[in-house]
Amino acid sequence: MFGFSKKWNPDGKHVYVTGGSSGLGLSLALLLAEKGAHISIVARNQEKLDAALGLIEQKRVSPSQIFKAYSHPLDSGSAATEALELVCAAHGGEAPDAVFSCAGSSRPLFFVEMEEKDLLDGMTNGYWVQAWTAWAAAKKMVRQQKKGAKIVLVSSTLGLMTFLGYASYSPPKHALRGLADTLQSEMMLYGIDVHIYFPATMYTPGYDEEEKSKPAITKKIESTDEGQTPEKAAQVLYKGVVNGHAHITGDLITDLFSASTRGAVKRRNWLLEGLYDFVAYIAVPVWRSDVDKQVLAHREEHQQYLSNKGFFS
Amino acid sequence: MFGFSKKWNPDGKHVYVTGGSSGLGLSLALLLAEKGAHISIVARNQEKLDAALGLIEQKRVSPSQIFKAYSHPLDSGSAATEALELVCAAHGGEAPDAVFSCAGSSRPLFFVEMEEKDLLDGMTNGYWVQAWTAWAAAKKMVRQQKKGAKIVLVSSTLGLMTFLGYASYSPPKHALRGLADTLQSEMMLYGIDVHIYFPATMYTPGYDEEEKSKPAITKKIESTDEGQTPEKAAQVLYKGVVNGHAHITGDLITDLFSASTRGAVKRRNWLLEGLYDFVAYIAVPVWRSDVDKQVLAHREEHQQYLSNKGFFS
Repeated sequence: MFGFSKKWNPDGKHVYVTGGSSGLGLSLALLLAEKGAHISIVARNQEKLDAALGLIEQKRVSPSQIFKAYSHPLDSGSAATEALELVCAAHGGEAPDAVFSCAGSSRPLFFVEMEEKDLLDGMTNGYWVQAWTAWAAAKKMVRQQKKGAKIVLVSSTLGLMTFLGYASYSPPKHALRGLADTLQSEMMLYGIDVHIYFPATMYTPGYDEEEKSKPAITKKIESTDEGQTPEKAAQVLYKGVVNGHAHITGDLITDLFSASTRGAVKRRNWLLEGLYDFVAYIAVPVWRSDVDKQVLAHREEHQQYLSNKGFFS
Repeated sequence: MFGFSKKWNPDGKHVYVTGGSSGLGLSLALLLAEKGAHISIVARNQEKLDAALGLIEQKRVSPSQIFKAYSHPLDSGSAATEALELVCAAHGGEAPDAVFSCAGSSRPLFFVEMEEKDLLDGMTNGYWVQAWTAWAAAKKMVRQQKKGAKIVLVSSTLGLMTFLGYASYSPPKHALRGLADTLQSEMMLYGIDVHIYFPATMYTPGYDEEEKSKPAITKKIESTDEGQTPEKAAQVLYKGVVNGHAHITGDLITDLFSASTRGAVKRRNWLLEGLYDFVAYIAVPVWRSDVDKQVLAHREEHQQYLSNKGFFS
């Protein structure tokens, strides 16, 4: 695919990172600052943004690097466009060379316990905050004929598979994959590269928040999961973008689901992905069968739980 | 999976079909009426609903069958809940035995030409109109402990793969797959079955509407597609539900994408799906490479098109 043949080098490039004040976004901003990029971060909380900017400053490798932080919402097309304009203003109105859309959050719950707002918020925080930034950036990049620019989305392992508890999170993360795959095709018209990262569990402030609402059975199914630090995740994402991978994964479980949900995605490694696909063909149904058993075994306890909460009355 | 071992029989069951006044929804309603089910359809246009009800009446096989049609929106949680209550009122307030969520539409466009409204409408018409009905139905079915009930969603081949032009449609159709897969796991807690259908191109009134906005390059890529009638699609969907398939597909192209995006989905036929996966491993990249070439060859014409529309000025 166009632009995917040579390695990407962020040195001297202007990189816009949403959700850049904490978690994966911050780790990525730090890493890119160290590689010589100009960094703009956007998030909501000014205090966190100030702290993040201080940390980014410590990674400076050249006096010419421009580091900026802005507090702005991203949850509508107009909000994301405004945020992008703020970010571009410090660079003479020019579109960023790369946009990393790392904003997002999740609130696991049982579907029947969700209110209308839970599902809507799930879509906003899991999909729209990223889709609007991609939309605003694509328009500006295309208008300025910015060939070689990059748009990077962040989905989740739960964008490739899912199980109970994630009815407000997994659909938006699947949607992001649909958006990235569409744009990987469409942005070829403009020489713009689109990447999407599917991180597994990350130990971030967002994860701690998630744990508060997460159903016990969901936690139990995840208990064999090995989480990663946001620093490690940022390295995986960075390496994937540098190497021009359309889909980026960084742990064995996600590799297996990626290979077995590859569809029409551009291959990275024919042999390895074929092997993963074969392993997944055997191993995933075994995993699934075990999860199903856990769900069925949880039935009575769950009935009691709903009953105690007054669901049936 | 629970309830998936014996064949489903709609005779005497109350089946609620959204989007039941035309296209796939209507064909399905006719088919189910012929099998002895009570049918409730919901759509917007009263004239089409009246006409549909007349056609359904012609399929009556028993004087006890109840056929009802309601004009109601489904684009919010409260609207879908109200529609469901209307539908249940004619059945003593009891939840339907099966809900087929067939409502939806698509408007293909280039991403950079989309307005905020295009993307929002795409999500509403491609995802929410179905998700809200599933949400309202799940709550009611669980509250009434309606074991053996069914929730059926309708995605698209574009919920398993995608290409340029579908940035407002493919993400919601991917999201529906994420929702169905989550609910297939979660509804096991209640003995409720969840199915999702991935139809290829169907020659319906919705398709004619789609063609009006569809970019020329998107049409060109689809030109080798063989579409199907909604009657044929309804038969495929019905058969899949009767046989208890979690994912339902009915044409070779979709079979290939289904096998190569299977992830953690319950298998239907190990041998056949393994074969499809293998064929897809070789054939899909060939198809993709051809599509990419068409996209690249379209660059100059597309630049001219955008320029003529004043995109760069």
